[in-house]
Amino acid sequence: MERHFDKSLDHLNRKIIEMGTVAETMIGRAVQALAERCMDMTDEVFALENRINHMQIELDEEALRLLATQQPVAADLRFLVAAMKINGELERIGDQAVNVCESTRILLQQPPLKPLVILPMMTETAQKMVRESLNAFVTRDTALAKTVIGEDDRVDNFKDQIFRELLTYMMSEPSTIPRAMSLVLISRNLERIGDQATNIAEEVIYMVEGKDVRHPDKTES
Amino acid sequence: MERHFDKSLDHLNRKIIEMGTVAETMIGRAVQALAERCMDMTDEVFALENRINHMQIELDEEALRLLATQQPVAADLRFLVAAMKINGELERIGDQAVNVCESTRILLQQPPLKPLVILPMMTETAQKMVRESLNAFVTRDTALAKTVIGEDDRVDNFKDQIFRELLTYMMSEPSTIPRAMSLVLISRNLERIGDQATNIAEEVIYMVEGKDVRHPDKTES
Repeated sequence: MERHFDKSLDHLNRKIIEMGTVAETMIGRAVQALAERCMDMTDEVFALENRINHMQIELDEEALRLLATQQPVAADLRFLVAAMKINGELERIGDQAVNVCESTRILLQQPPLKPLVILPMMTETAQKMVRESLNAFVTRDTALAKTVIGEDDRVDNFKDQIFRELLTYMMSEPSTIPRAMSLVLISRNLERIGDQATNIAEEVIYMVEGKDVRHPDKTES
Repeated sequence: MERHFDKSLDHLNRKIIEMGTVAETMIGRAVQALAERCMDMTDEVFALENRINHMQIELDEEALRLLATQQPVAADLRFLVAAMKINGELERIGDQAVNVCESTRILLQQPPLKPLVILPMMTETAQKMVRESLNAFVTRDTALAKTVIGEDDRVDNFKDQIFRELLTYMMSEPSTIPRAMSLVLISRNLERIGDQATNIAEEVIYMVEGKDVRHPDKTES
């Protein structure tokens, strides 16, 4: 019985990593579609959303079934609860990639406003955060989880840089406003992905250390 | 034992409603601070964030403790898992209210761009969605949950109206761009609150009917 349960947990781990790979691909393709001005690539992201949604439902049902049939306690219980929460985060990361594609589809109907420089860097950072947060989950590596949390500042800095740059465009040439607005909204989607990877990393720390790091400054007051 | 567990579930229900009231107040105060140009009111929202964060940790721990000690199955298990997820949504609704306040603090340093008309209506709809989704949770009322899901279209329409109106301001008078941008971002925060209330409503339906309504169009393909 015990060994069967371990196998089930391994299976759940693999599914989460697989879902993470889909989420990471969605983020990459969404921004690539914009950078390379390729409408077809946005279709790929919409198809992957379908897949990640299925995966979420399956993973949720599997975790719920294990909670009901195995009645886990302590570390196993915390693992299953973390898996369900991380599952939700990954599905929402997929939603953000879809939001990027929706803005991209509007942007591709017009000539490019400017070459994209910071946005691809921001995208890579967000992807890396998602990947590392899931690696931290499966290896229960709290040091890696803390690195992920630290990287969120970089994403926020990219967001501020993008905002300032686009504001300059908009102020000097009002015809750029709709395109600049779409790019600002895309940067906000990527910012949220950084937040979601941070949420995953915080879940990992809570799961391993049983310590809530979600509101570090506020719980002591 | 059974009766003690029922009391614990009641206690959890009450805590969720209490947290919902805090979240709803935060949303209302954040937009009121903007409409009435009152900086002090934003302080109130930041104080309430502290409170909602505490509540989230307490509620999570209580649900985890009940999972471990009571080993619930079927309806009770689904209730506890739903409570943990709804708990997370409520804390994020609080985060969105804080985001609104951050934009408000910037906006209050400059003269008002225009009287707010649609934003207060959008706010009321978002607040109502949060309130009704939680009422649906405690009364296990799936019809009410479905009403909430239907209301999300209204929130999205408000968001589109606000965007179009502010775009007109920006295009005709570039000096309005920074303020208009802040207002657009505030409307996006409110839009997300509508999404989060929708998530809560979907959890309620799943909890009661055991039917996953999160991806209605996509799971059948």
